Amino acid sequence: MQALVIHAAGDLRVEAVETPPLGEQQLLVRVRCGGICGSDLHYYQHGGFGTVRVKEPMVLGHEVAGVVEAVGSAVRSHAQGDRIAISPSRPCGACRFCQQGLHNHCLDMRYYGSAMRTPHVQGAFRQQIVVEPAQAHRLADSVSDAEGALAEPLSVALHAVRRAGDLLGKRVLVTGCGPIGALLVIAARRAGAAHIVATDVAAAPLRAAARVGTDETVNVAEDAAGLARFSADKGSFDVLFEASGNERALRGAFDALRPRGVIVQVGIAGGGDMTLPLNTLVAKEFDLRGAFRFHEEFAVAVELLNKGLVDVKPLISATLPYRDAARAFALAADRSQAMKVVLDFE
Amino acid sequence: MQALVIHAAGDLRVEAVETPPLGEQQLLVRVRCGGICGSDLHYYQHGGFGTVRVKEPMVLGHEVAGVVEAVGSAVRSHAQGDRIAISPSRPCGACRFCQQGLHNHCLDMRYYGSAMRTPHVQGAFRQQIVVEPAQAHRLADSVSDAEGALAEPLSVALHAVRRAGDLLGKRVLVTGCGPIGALLVIAARRAGAAHIVATDVAAAPLRAAARVGTDETVNVAEDAAGLARFSADKGSFDVLFEASGNERALRGAFDALRPRGVIVQVGIAGGGDMTLPLNTLVAKEFDLRGAFRFHEEFAVAVELLNKGLVDVKPLISATLPYRDAARAFALAADRSQAMKVVLDFE
Amino acid sequence: MQALVIHAAGDLRVEAVETPPLGEQQLLVRVRCGGICGSDLHYYQHGGFGTVRVKEPMVLGHEVAGVVEAVGSAVRSHAQGDRIAISPSRPCGACRFCQQGLHNHCLDMRYYGSAMRTPHVQGAFRQQIVVEPAQAHRLADSVSDAEGALAEPLSVALHAVRRAGDLLGKRVLVTGCGPIGALLVIAARRAGAAHIVATDVAAAPLRAAARVGTDETVNVAEDAAGLARFSADKGSFDVLFEASGNERALRGAFDALRPRGVIVQVGIAGGGDMTLPLNTLVAKEFDLRGAFRFHEEFAVAVELLNKGLVDVKPLISATLPYRDAARAFALAADRSQAMKVVLDFE
Amino acid sequence: MQALVIHAAGDLRVEAVETPPLGEQQLLVRVRCGGICGSDLHYYQHGGFGTVRVKEPMVLGHEVAGVVEAVGSAVRSHAQGDRIAISPSRPCGACRFCQQGLHNHCLDMRYYGSAMRTPHVQGAFRQQIVVEPAQAHRLADSVSDAEGALAEPLSVALHAVRRAGDLLGKRVLVTGCGPIGALLVIAARRAGAAHIVATDVAAAPLRAAARVGTDETVNVAEDAAGLARFSADKGSFDVLFEASGNERALRGAFDALRPRGVIVQVGIAGGGDMTLPLNTLVAKEFDLRGAFRFHEEFAVAVELLNKGLVDVKPLISATLPYRDAARAFALAADRSQAMKVVLDFE
Repeated sequence: MQALVIHAAGDLRVEAVETPPLGEQQLLVRVRCGGICGSDLHYYQHGGFGTVRVKEPMVLGHEVAGVVEAVGSAVRSHAQGDRIAISPSRPCGACRFCQQGLHNHCLDMRYYGSAMRTPHVQGAFRQQIVVEPAQAHRLADSVSDAEGALAEPLSVALHAVRRAGDLLGKRVLVTGCGPIGALLVIAARRAGAAHIVATDVAAAPLRAAARVGTDETVNVAEDAAGLARFSADKGSFDVLFEASGNERALRGAFDALRPRGVIVQVGIAGGGDMTLPLNTLVAKEFDLRGAFRFHEEFAVAVELLNKGLVDVKPLISATLPYRDAARAFALAADRSQAMKVVLDFE
Repeated sequence: MQALVIHAAGDLRVEAVETPPLGEQQLLVRVRCGGICGSDLHYYQHGGFGTVRVKEPMVLGHEVAGVVEAVGSAVRSHAQGDRIAISPSRPCGACRFCQQGLHNHCLDMRYYGSAMRTPHVQGAFRQQIVVEPAQAHRLADSVSDAEGALAEPLSVALHAVRRAGDLLGKRVLVTGCGPIGALLVIAARRAGAAHIVATDVAAAPLRAAARVGTDETVNVAEDAAGLARFSADKGSFDVLFEASGNERALRGAFDALRPRGVIVQVGIAGGGDMTLPLNTLVAKEFDLRGAFRFHEEFAVAVELLNKGLVDVKPLISATLPYRDAARAFALAADRSQAMKVVLDFE
Repeated sequence: MQALVIHAAGDLRVEAVETPPLGEQQLLVRVRCGGICGSDLHYYQHGGFGTVRVKEPMVLGHEVAGVVEAVGSAVRSHAQGDRIAISPSRPCGACRFCQQGLHNHCLDMRYYGSAMRTPHVQGAFRQQIVVEPAQAHRLADSVSDAEGALAEPLSVALHAVRRAGDLLGKRVLVTGCGPIGALLVIAARRAGAAHIVATDVAAAPLRAAARVGTDETVNVAEDAAGLARFSADKGSFDVLFEASGNERALRGAFDALRPRGVIVQVGIAGGGDMTLPLNTLVAKEFDLRGAFRFHEEFAVAVELLNKGLVDVKPLISATLPYRDAARAFALAADRSQAMKVVLDFE
Repeated sequence: MQALVIHAAGDLRVEAVETPPLGEQQLLVRVRCGGICGSDLHYYQHGGFGTVRVKEPMVLGHEVAGVVEAVGSAVRSHAQGDRIAISPSRPCGACRFCQQGLHNHCLDMRYYGSAMRTPHVQGAFRQQIVVEPAQAHRLADSVSDAEGALAEPLSVALHAVRRAGDLLGKRVLVTGCGPIGALLVIAARRAGAAHIVATDVAAAPLRAAARVGTDETVNVAEDAAGLARFSADKGSFDVLFEASGNERALRGAFDALRPRGVIVQVGIAGGGDMTLPLNTLVAKEFDLRGAFRFHEEFAVAVELLNKGLVDVKPLISATLPYRDAARAFALAADRSQAMKVVLDFE
């Protein structure tokens, strides 16, 4: 069985890895599709991000869908042939945060393809994988494998939207229109946002955001004052989803956000820090909330996909064979050409 | 100018009434369409509901749309010819509840066509009406007058949905599929509900609910145990919208609602009282919330209609001339034939 | 070792029971004090409540404090001689409600001294008991064993107060001044309530409530219109804690509760049902929330006791030897004489 | 009538100003006591803060108490001789934020002694002032004039505590123990916080905080790693109130704050900006909320003072005659000697 293994920055190899044995409470899955995430790109381009560095060979990938190939003897919930999206979130269930329902803050999380802990947690860009039934969410016939692979980033967006609270009828700003920003547009609309404006510094991502349902887009590279018209009377947006990880994007939105506005920070800053006008945050009583991964939202993502209540197809830029990983990663890194690039493992 | 005036139970007359003078801060509106509401029906059939009785002639109606015919000299926000939906909610703005943002609890509310106070507040089933600019919400060309008249009951549904809190990915039960129940299905879906089940005791309203997007419907008259399959493991619905005003509907949903489930009571009980299993409410820690009218949701309703984010057309059963009021009211009262019946005032 | 065993209504016996073996992850505790709860009284007087009936001999009691007598070989958190209050809440930790942090809704709860499931869960009115370390909360030297026994009903009150949300500066009504009502006065004050009014139908409980810090008390048996002065302008209380389980108490408070007021129902109705003016709940948009037991609040209760931030001593009416159980239960049932009656197990 | 007028940095004069005429809906108040606030100090020392500069002579002061000297002919709510604390918050009541109940974000706020708008809003460090009845909150006999002057900063603390949500049983960290920090300790305890730790870089403020009820204090100047023991298992504080305006204080608390912890930022940064580890905020899903002034909390502050539910006396360092303003301001600026310095206007 082949897998995509990162050894160091720029050193991504297709290698044979072993298939682990199937436990009686587990499923053996043939992986079909895997989406390339920004963190996969960071491992590939920079060998990590912030203080997280690749210290040993690690299979990448955490956005995958596949088909159940074999079923452990004690499993009743799934059957051979089930097409599934796989949640990469594997909390312990027992620590104080799991017991509070905050599984994404588990003290012993084993999230696929992450170098946050050592030994690293091996990822899912591989032809076969053994998973727990709780990770395996059945896909409807109407949902393609590639769409199924997007259940993971869609979960991130759904979790961020939940962090914002009720959006019905709200005015929403999304800064940064990469795959997560575009999925935030989809998720915010699904949650009832009445008016959605998206910003970016490049034209292609803005076009992609428009395709999934913004009301307006603003290219802040070309039109630095493009948000100024939203600043009258202390600002008009109720909620800001910051998905660029760029300090200027966050600062630039403060005037356009109304007092008591909610900011959900989803994007990660390159250096980790941001310099912010805290006095404005105080005077306007903003509410700046971090949003990190997801847990129960994975099931919601799959249900919404299965019922056709969200459509992520416009965000799938290309599907390439996993053996062309280098080309696929280069394409995924090119914002002028790609939103989500999917690897085909068959 | 003609209006529909209720004098007593069963005594609804088409009468000439005067057009009030146009203030400089006001709009004169030619009313085009008016939806018949359950409360209009109660005034017509029973002369009121509960302790609220018609004590003097009162123009009925509070769900209307029209076109601006003349504009007060100081008004800059609107222009002649604007097609508008009219909010019937006219709070004082100054009392302690208005100052807390709870305008629907205004101590001096003057809601169209209501006998709650004496002298009664005259309604909007009339050919001309003078309104404040804040009541007048512009309709897009794509929205018909009849749809505009539905902005009011849609606002009721949106307000009830907001009372429930975040619905994204939630499992929702709606009991009672009259116009408000059906609009609750629309509003809950717009707010991100993942699975919506609706119940009623009649087939026609259930078909209407299905047309606007339920996942499942249950006829509890034919299948008294129809909700039993949702009762495993202490219940599966996260939220119940009770829109029937029927004690049995509310009681019957308790087993299917999960611990910490939220019940939003929208329907009004005939006698005012209901007998409930309070001990179950305690043991499962339900959260039973009243929802009453709306205020700022009217603007949201019109925006969602204007953008095509909700579709109320399937709920408009018929449009009849206001001179045929008796026939229109009879049709509106027949659940086997009608959801929303609209009067045409031209 | 002796225990208090209920066999049927009126049949409460002091009997020898076996001490279970001490597991390596457990504590053996010598029970010193146990408070008699309303549910203990119901088992004694009526053989149960609602549909819950004693079907087999059951040790009563769930409000106990004691001293650690022996420590399992793997336990590091506790030591012999530790004085502790014991939480009777033993959820499974694994079901979907535990995993959501809602342990009081555990699908497999084993709560001490409860006939809700069969075989019944044996209680803690016994001289020795084996517990998990997570149940054992150390008492400060300043806290007596009897006060420690009140950690459990205090937890119920703290949980109910949390269900109400932020109370800082709020106006609070408590209906029913038994031990739970009086503890609600204490907990609401601790949470910042600015004005607390308590009602009851008897003078003695009202005096007890006054001793723990009400601003006003109203004897609604003597002064049926005693709450009328709080009804102006749609009502003045922000929050109602209903602790009587009496329908008249709940109904009688509706006029005095402001629109959007929160009702936390803590009391259990004799017959299970209550008939309520639902239309008022709708029109005033009340928020009626059940409060059931507690979980993490037990640690809070002990911490507040240990720091002297609450004082429950005024509620301890008498401490009697467990061999005088019949007399103790009779006293506990006499509202004119007793609030909390404590059994001494030594 | 004399007043304290700031002309420029360092130029504070005792000057005669006119007493405005008394309207029929107003009260004429003899000011007795006024507390010196950090913003008064900033005007005196620096001529303003951030972009807010003194551009014309302005009476300072917004923390005052006095006695009603004359009552407008139409006023029924107050009487001559009433001792009152005066709320300096004067929102318009009509703008969209007032109508949402967010009066502290009023688009036309006239807050005493503020150079935020030009002409500046004159302040209350004067011997006589004319106020609206809604600003005048009666003091109990047990509350001194100086304590009454502290109702304003206490309101700031109460508002910040409300921004944090329910505190009952929570673990709270307060960084910065100036008057606002110390009042936050008082307010957080009143709201039910179970454990309160305060930090500062100086010994005297920490002693003051200890006097009003911290559980522990940490001098982070002497013990830079003083919070490290709270960092195990991703952190132990539930809520942080940041009252220093110092970036290092805020950054330094991130490790000690648990995932989903709430940060209420009350302190204003000197330069306006702060550089923060946003990636930690994202990964731990903090919720960073600004808290700005107050509105309805003023009534709560006076009620809590009147009932003895809070005690601010330990924070009153000295009371000096207003003619010694220079000395009083110098003392107020000396953190080693003073918490709150009060001016006597008689």
